[in-house]
Amino acid sequence: MDWPVTYRRKVRYSDTDAQGIVFNGNYARYFDDTLTDLFDLVGYEWGDVEVVLARLEIDYRSPARLGETLITGARVQEFGTTSFVVRLVTWEEASNRVVAEGKQIQVTVSGKDFRPVPVPPELKAAVEAVQGAVGD
Amino acid sequence: MDWPVTYRRKVRYSDTDAQGIVFNGNYARYFDDTLTDLFDLVGYEWGDVEVVLARLEIDYRSPARLGETLITGARVQEFGTTSFVVRLVTWEEASNRVVAEGKQIQVTVSGKDFRPVPVPPELKAAVEAVQGAVGD
Amino acid sequence: MDWPVTYRRKVRYSDTDAQGIVFNGNYARYFDDTLTDLFDLVGYEWGDVEVVLARLEIDYRSPARLGETLITGARVQEFGTTSFVVRLVTWEEASNRVVAEGKQIQVTVSGKDFRPVPVPPELKAAVEAVQGAVGD
Amino acid sequence: MDWPVTYRRKVRYSDTDAQGIVFNGNYARYFDDTLTDLFDLVGYEWGDVEVVLARLEIDYRSPARLGETLITGARVQEFGTTSFVVRLVTWEEASNRVVAEGKQIQVTVSGKDFRPVPVPPELKAAVEAVQGAVGD
Repeated sequence: MDWPVTYRRKVRYSDTDAQGIVFNGNYARYFDDTLTDLFDLVGYEWGDVEVVLARLEIDYRSPARLGETLITGARVQEFGTTSFVVRLVTWEEASNRVVAEGKQIQVTVSGKDFRPVPVPPELKAAVEAVQGAVGD
Repeated sequence: MDWPVTYRRKVRYSDTDAQGIVFNGNYARYFDDTLTDLFDLVGYEWGDVEVVLARLEIDYRSPARLGETLITGARVQEFGTTSFVVRLVTWEEASNRVVAEGKQIQVTVSGKDFRPVPVPPELKAAVEAVQGAVGD
Repeated sequence: MDWPVTYRRKVRYSDTDAQGIVFNGNYARYFDDTLTDLFDLVGYEWGDVEVVLARLEIDYRSPARLGETLITGARVQEFGTTSFVVRLVTWEEASNRVVAEGKQIQVTVSGKDFRPVPVPPELKAAVEAVQGAVGD
Repeated sequence: MDWPVTYRRKVRYSDTDAQGIVFNGNYARYFDDTLTDLFDLVGYEWGDVEVVLARLEIDYRSPARLGETLITGARVQEFGTTSFVVRLVTWEEASNRVVAEGKQIQVTVSGKDFRPVPVPPELKAAVEAVQGAVGD
């Protein structure tokens, strides 16, 4: 897959837990960090619209260990009426071994009352400008 | 729902992010902490079997803020052949407002080669001793 | 020592690192969490004054492990002109073994320009109401 | 100052707290991550000797915000008989503004009984090979 952004994190003690592997909750952090990078790249001016994470799914494929370097890629996979789906994959750099796969459902809301609002067409266009066309 | 364990966490600065709410990745931490408490209560002697998180799902229902107290309940919802499903809910203590709901798929593996092994009947019995009967 | 607040944390996987002990950086988190509890107890209305952490010192006395319960106590030890010193100790509940000792230097600043301002006498009085007299 | 290693971290939501700035405890994490990188570079074979953090000092110089990039440099500043001192500085990349300064006292211990042991001369030599001479 072609990723518009990749996020790189060498695994250090602060990433790991007493099982000697990356703590499972840290992948949610890597995913959120990567999404921020994606939207920094997209450069959309949000105005009155905000994005709220509604659902997160993580499939753990293999553990990662101290000293390994993890790369996370993110891309918008699908646009809905008031939401969009982000696909994320984390792999180990040296071996290309997939470590975790994720999916986020992000909802576009009004910054005033936090009710869902339609995905702005300009947001979709700005995402497609960095990724190529995205399915609906 | 009746929860065999509940985990209590007052939201402090370290739980929050620059949006002023609990950082989304921290619910994975609360869930993992609560599961550890559940298995401490169950008191099963794992021997050669280990448990590995294979999949995590989180539905974010409402944001939580500094000073609120969050309670997370966990229970085993279903046993499969080599896995079991844990259901988790986090709610705000004062209002009972649901903040997040989660599901973990945990796989029982051999501590030697990390291949899936059948859920030990004694584990199922120990869980049911603290929770009541669990569906298959 | 007599602590106006104590903060309790059972060590779970999310607290530990690949050395099998509580990650050293997490004590800064326990300390900050405990200070928040202290000021929640003090109940001072900050108004235009804010508190900023200027310096943190941690002495690591013994490692803590999964399943141990850590208690952290905090108290204001000294008031200066535009700052105050907080003393913190973390110990293991069952054994009373000291795990870490800390010191924070907190500076009172204007919420407008973040320049140091004198410690409000009402803040000192509110702290002394929950702790007893504090040296200058 | 000339740093043998620098560690780069763009500030994302997971680094921040509800005050809108990098959470104070995260600098302990950046420092620990950077020290790991320094010893990866030094490449010393530890054998029976381990290193334990005995004391951490952090001076907070200015807050850091979402989207800023922080660089942390680390170097061994001094060798003692059974310990050494590491100096750390975190600055903002674009402006060179100093954000935090730190000091770690690391003790060399036996991996068997965790008692202090003399700093191995080969460790000192390996550090000096990447840094240049270090004072005693």
